[in-house]
Amino acid sequence: MRAEIIAVGTEILLGDIIDTNSAYLSKELALLGIDVYYKSCVGDNEDRLRDAFYEGLKRSDIIITTGGLGPTDDDITKEIACEVFDKKMELDTNSLEKIELFFNKIGTKMTENNKKQAYFPKDAIILENKNGTAPGAILSKDKKIIIVLPGPPKEMIPMFEYEVKPYLKSINKGTLISKTLKFFGIGESTLESKIIDIIKNQDNPTIAPYVSNMEIRLRISAKAESEYKANEMITPIVKKIKDRVGEFIYAEDNVSIEEVVSKMLVEKNLTISIAESCTGGLVSSTLINYPGISSVFMEGCVTYSNESKINRLGVSADTLARYGAVSEEIAKEMAEGIATNLNTNVAISTTGIAGPGGGTTYKPVGLVYIGIYINGKTTVKKYILNGNRQDIRLRATKNALNDLRLRLLEL
Amino acid sequence: MRAEIIAVGTEILLGDIIDTNSAYLSKELALLGIDVYYKSCVGDNEDRLRDAFYEGLKRSDIIITTGGLGPTDDDITKEIACEVFDKKMELDTNSLEKIELFFNKIGTKMTENNKKQAYFPKDAIILENKNGTAPGAILSKDKKIIIVLPGPPKEMIPMFEYEVKPYLKSINKGTLISKTLKFFGIGESTLESKIIDIIKNQDNPTIAPYVSNMEIRLRISAKAESEYKANEMITPIVKKIKDRVGEFIYAEDNVSIEEVVSKMLVEKNLTISIAESCTGGLVSSTLINYPGISSVFMEGCVTYSNESKINRLGVSADTLARYGAVSEEIAKEMAEGIATNLNTNVAISTTGIAGPGGGTTYKPVGLVYIGIYINGKTTVKKYILNGNRQDIRLRATKNALNDLRLRLLEL
Repeated sequence: MRAEIIAVGTEILLGDIIDTNSAYLSKELALLGIDVYYKSCVGDNEDRLRDAFYEGLKRSDIIITTGGLGPTDDDITKEIACEVFDKKMELDTNSLEKIELFFNKIGTKMTENNKKQAYFPKDAIILENKNGTAPGAILSKDKKIIIVLPGPPKEMIPMFEYEVKPYLKSINKGTLISKTLKFFGIGESTLESKIIDIIKNQDNPTIAPYVSNMEIRLRISAKAESEYKANEMITPIVKKIKDRVGEFIYAEDNVSIEEVVSKMLVEKNLTISIAESCTGGLVSSTLINYPGISSVFMEGCVTYSNESKINRLGVSADTLARYGAVSEEIAKEMAEGIATNLNTNVAISTTGIAGPGGGTTYKPVGLVYIGIYINGKTTVKKYILNGNRQDIRLRATKNALNDLRLRLLEL
Repeated sequence: MRAEIIAVGTEILLGDIIDTNSAYLSKELALLGIDVYYKSCVGDNEDRLRDAFYEGLKRSDIIITTGGLGPTDDDITKEIACEVFDKKMELDTNSLEKIELFFNKIGTKMTENNKKQAYFPKDAIILENKNGTAPGAILSKDKKIIIVLPGPPKEMIPMFEYEVKPYLKSINKGTLISKTLKFFGIGESTLESKIIDIIKNQDNPTIAPYVSNMEIRLRISAKAESEYKANEMITPIVKKIKDRVGEFIYAEDNVSIEEVVSKMLVEKNLTISIAESCTGGLVSSTLINYPGISSVFMEGCVTYSNESKINRLGVSADTLARYGAVSEEIAKEMAEGIATNLNTNVAISTTGIAGPGGGTTYKPVGLVYIGIYINGKTTVKKYILNGNRQDIRLRATKNALNDLRLRLLEL
């Protein structure tokens, strides 16, 4: 079964509103095992909307629209949908009553133009709107279906969840189950090249890589008649992938690296302190994204100047003079300094050149040293990171958390 | 002139990524006087993308695509665009060199599949990608134009801004000049309601509000035959807006609040230290976004626990016991503590409940106190911020920087 989505509204077309409905609907439809091959957006224009319906019905079994169900003259989605299916509308008194009730509830008198929202074809399935005035509808003709939904997400989402989803389940067979693997320390193209044969040979389950926030995730999705069967199809694929690139997998769920690391610290009951130079507080604030961290997070400090590295962390002025602030030696002293100072089991340090200025031939922009101290043992890794100032700092932060993760795994 | 936008990518189609590029492009095109009547999204599928191009070329003069320019086999946008225009591609050695340089810089060997990104038709205008490997391109045939751009906004936006916009201006007559006003402390709908008459009555200049990162900017754009004329049209509008809502404007350029505050500190030669609890390092790391801050930034500390507030900042255990860590009193002691400790002119402190747990009737999730210390005088403001944990922390950070800005203005 194949669906497509049409977002209706000049505001979306002009970019004044960002369309989040389509993303929500795509995900929900995928979970129902309904393929979405096409999404589009048209303004509140009769001819263009009519064309969009005709084009869509050629390609797909179901068209879902959002928006254009309001009381004003430029709300035309339902009207054009009925025209396309050659259906006449008449007043649905039940819907009219509900709209009147809604206005009573908010203490306003219903205006005449709101009546428009209570007109539907006789054979339509009317979808009640519990959070607004415009009901939606499911229209069908010759095995094709048009579902018109309101535009505001707080009206559309509950309507889809409680009324459309059960309907779609009833007409579509099968279940779709997905499993996510999260990777760090491997680029998208390298990952793909290592498992390209697995990806290419798969139609069901499908394997799709996604990149966001400098992390890669791989989604393996199987369609089957039952959850059990779908899982049975996914398991061997996951095993194959792990055999090839398992070392880069940091989670088998869609969780962030800070959540993984924080949970490890809390489980092992290891206290942590953080000394940051180039990342300027990002490592601390990223870890603190995870609410449960408070029991082990002792203190973070942003020692951006040499002076504060000396005074706060006890870094030696001699080491600074000999190796410079951006060096393996200083990363080591920073991590050990704060761990000693605060008596924590674990410490992270970062020092680097985030740019845009400050780079030299020997120490270019992007050079970052990351120190990890755990119970007396410090390791330092050197990185050359790319991107602008913000990218370098973000990459350094993610690498710091991953370096810690790898060390914690050794315990 | 009429354009349409095609977002290419299965990730967008499936809803794993929300397409913000199309909204950005629609707004930019509107400002250039180019109409957008249609937007669509297709997955990484040859046949469906080809159809989308053919359909689009029937309706529009220009098609702009985003996404699908990467190195892997499922990145096909450029290839299909060339096929549709019947153009052969050949290796562009200049682009190849730039891609190789990019990989050298990040210390990775270019894999063979990346070469694909350096192939273009002979007559294409190649758009350099300064923030990634995939160049874009402008292709034209029989008065129709296809512009292929990369998908990641941080690559696409600069490419559009610096390469596509000048091109579109050159083929579309007139000069377009824009002025940006940046606001803080006023909501989008309140701002709009205060100047709705100015917005509605304007066709040229146009006035468009944008919201991102919890800040609002207003862009006033005029189209005229010369820069001088366009500026002459903008000036009275800016004056009108300032008369109404001038108190909320923190910059008359498209700069961030951290840049504004950092520059004020550097100009006035005021040193700063930061003590953070709920924001967990975000205030420090946000200030350090601005490279010039290093001369005045002394130290930041993340004192998340009561213990570290006492030990590090000298906050009194008695005050903690009496008022709790999230209180006006503690915010004051934190700011004064770190300023005294590090002998800085300025200090910021934050303490609050970012959630999701930890809220009570008297101290709900979202309650945040922000302290600003300047040369002996401390002020504390109380906020009730909304959103999830990350939103609350980000809002607290922005408010902290704005509070400091307002205090610095008084000096």
